[in-house]
Amino acid sequence: MDYNALFSRSAQVMQPSPIRRMTGLVNQPGVISFAGGMPNPSTFPEHDFKAILDDIVETDGCRIFQYGVTRGLEEFRDLLVQLLAERGVASRREQLMITSGSQQGLELLSRVLLDPGDVVLVELPSYIGALACFRNTLAEMVGVAQDEQGIIPEALSATAARLRAEGRRIKFAYLIPNFQNPSGITIAPERRARVLEIAAEHGFLIVEDDPYGELYFRDTTPEWLEPIKARPGGEAVVYLSSFSKVVSPGLRTAYIAAPEAVTQQVELAKQAADLCTSSLDQRLIFEYCRRGLYARHLGEIRDFYDAKCRAMLFALDQCMPAGVRWTRPKGGMFVWLTLPEGLDAEALAMEAVQQFKVAFIHGAPFFVDGTGRNTLRLTFAKESADKIAEGISILGEFFKEKISKL
Amino acid sequence: MDYNALFSRSAQVMQPSPIRRMTGLVNQPGVISFAGGMPNPSTFPEHDFKAILDDIVETDGCRIFQYGVTRGLEEFRDLLVQLLAERGVASRREQLMITSGSQQGLELLSRVLLDPGDVVLVELPSYIGALACFRNTLAEMVGVAQDEQGIIPEALSATAARLRAEGRRIKFAYLIPNFQNPSGITIAPERRARVLEIAAEHGFLIVEDDPYGELYFRDTTPEWLEPIKARPGGEAVVYLSSFSKVVSPGLRTAYIAAPEAVTQQVELAKQAADLCTSSLDQRLIFEYCRRGLYARHLGEIRDFYDAKCRAMLFALDQCMPAGVRWTRPKGGMFVWLTLPEGLDAEALAMEAVQQFKVAFIHGAPFFVDGTGRNTLRLTFAKESADKIAEGISILGEFFKEKISKL
Repeated sequence: MDYNALFSRSAQVMQPSPIRRMTGLVNQPGVISFAGGMPNPSTFPEHDFKAILDDIVETDGCRIFQYGVTRGLEEFRDLLVQLLAERGVASRREQLMITSGSQQGLELLSRVLLDPGDVVLVELPSYIGALACFRNTLAEMVGVAQDEQGIIPEALSATAARLRAEGRRIKFAYLIPNFQNPSGITIAPERRARVLEIAAEHGFLIVEDDPYGELYFRDTTPEWLEPIKARPGGEAVVYLSSFSKVVSPGLRTAYIAAPEAVTQQVELAKQAADLCTSSLDQRLIFEYCRRGLYARHLGEIRDFYDAKCRAMLFALDQCMPAGVRWTRPKGGMFVWLTLPEGLDAEALAMEAVQQFKVAFIHGAPFFVDGTGRNTLRLTFAKESADKIAEGISILGEFFKEKISKL
Repeated sequence: MDYNALFSRSAQVMQPSPIRRMTGLVNQPGVISFAGGMPNPSTFPEHDFKAILDDIVETDGCRIFQYGVTRGLEEFRDLLVQLLAERGVASRREQLMITSGSQQGLELLSRVLLDPGDVVLVELPSYIGALACFRNTLAEMVGVAQDEQGIIPEALSATAARLRAEGRRIKFAYLIPNFQNPSGITIAPERRARVLEIAAEHGFLIVEDDPYGELYFRDTTPEWLEPIKARPGGEAVVYLSSFSKVVSPGLRTAYIAAPEAVTQQVELAKQAADLCTSSLDQRLIFEYCRRGLYARHLGEIRDFYDAKCRAMLFALDQCMPAGVRWTRPKGGMFVWLTLPEGLDAEALAMEAVQQFKVAFIHGAPFFVDGTGRNTLRLTFAKESADKIAEGISILGEFFKEKISKL
């Protein structure tokens, strides 16, 4: 039987993750990996998790192992209302929904908001997992330039105006304001305000994806990171956040805060998508927060990643040849490199991992406009400071040689 | 902002579950509930789960709390190959995928196989959760009649021929062969063979949803339940099964066995849908199976539900007035009642729970052709034998009075 002939139009556009294609090579022994986007497993609080599981599994198993409600554990949503309030986001329980990771949140929003041919505005570059969700609905993604201060309001405004003049339907702009994956860039406060105005002017939503916001480093004040949703006029923003990067991604626990009409519709979509999120995962993360362990943990992992980031920036300053530029993230997990025009980061990534056992991810798949061939993403999350220094030194030599031949 | 104006065409057709609408009433104290489709929480093996969690959380936390691969834990898929072999289904690890419940499997298959306007053939009645997935793709569902022996091959064949003559594209037939939700009906072996022939003749797939197959009762031989996929010519069948009904639904752990081309495409869809299934849930269920606890547990819960089913059938025999018919399931969780024409089970369900505190689910939403208003679903999973007798007695009187007024 020819199965391909049975596949849907959506299936025809689905693409494997470029990160996944590198996985086999990256996971070889001895490879220094700046690829991948996983949190460092040494940050996982196994000991606390074990104690919590000891307390809850036998005493509350009737609930934990049963179907849960589609929106997620009620007391957990109440706790998230508090947590969001600490970030300046006012919300009610009815506006919140737990999802099986933010990836699911993005997928459900895509299904609820996007028809084939609709337009989603995305940053150049943007998170490939989100791009996959948008692409699978047969919507069109249009890129908007960013600089060191984040998305450029004038570019956003001009793009929106042009698309509307062409009769296109813009449904939303997808933004990752804090320590963006992949660029590490943070949108400056005044630009956050401006983006809200532009969205209101052109009648599209903002989907604000914030998995990294809690992971800010020492020199950054949280006020600077105030969510777009927390600002005047931000009520309509659809805000996503997650425990994946800051506690554990294996426990698929994230959340959406949105206008109630949107949350209700996303709930209907989730009912068909998986009925409910793992009750055990929800209870474990809920208890972890309720006992005050999450707040303490955040302090620890901020320092942990901060030190790694400094090690990487120091090494880059020391080792990178002229012509290479990189971002200086204030949090999160990623540094973004731009090589001189003419270098192909995809070919370089393959060569680096095979010849020098240093892995990174080429940047092109993060761009929806076909640019970015000379860019790449480095994560400092995985390796020790020593390995970071060693790996960046190797890459510095490697790039220097390649640049010399341009 | 008018959010409804932003919603997609898919969002416009999404409907809340009719079960969910009853939930508030059903969960009142003192209600005898034959509604819902949840396993009985007293069957959950909390004690074994606690022991397993004690063993694995601290020692293997680096893996358990990290992102997992999209297809699911490798050793778990190897174990499932064995488990499927015991049911007569030959498979390889590459053909298997773990999903976050079978609901997710159904959703992913819908996305991968269905375009708007495509046809899915479904039993009359069929599982509302699956119907929701199909509906949300804007595919059209066409019903095929079943009788006590399951789907009627002649009806399937005639419907397929008619649709093809009309130029319609049939992508697959969705079947729940064992103790169907909602009807409790099992497809007879000779019909399973015939269904395969019809699918091959008309060039559509069979999606075989089997969450209840392991839950057979004493008088039933497992041979009788041999999956469609296990039969000659069944290689192309997409088979779904789950641990939700037989171990725990709160742990979102189910699986698909399909031709490799289909599995690969479903994997791409899952990558965008939620990246991976909860690693903790997978590890817990995997260990539960690996230690031989699952096999022992199955023996226990078969007896447990068998006794409840007998109690319900005995009570129905005793209490139901002439004109009421019901199925005699050989496993699973559901009995299906057909009232005399002219009675509206939806109105009766509301009246029964409000006036007599006995809850059931009306049948109409399980039919895609607008029929079934005089049908209803009873589950024997939740209540004790005494409460089953009491509730059925009350319903018997209630229906008798309603029939007398026809």
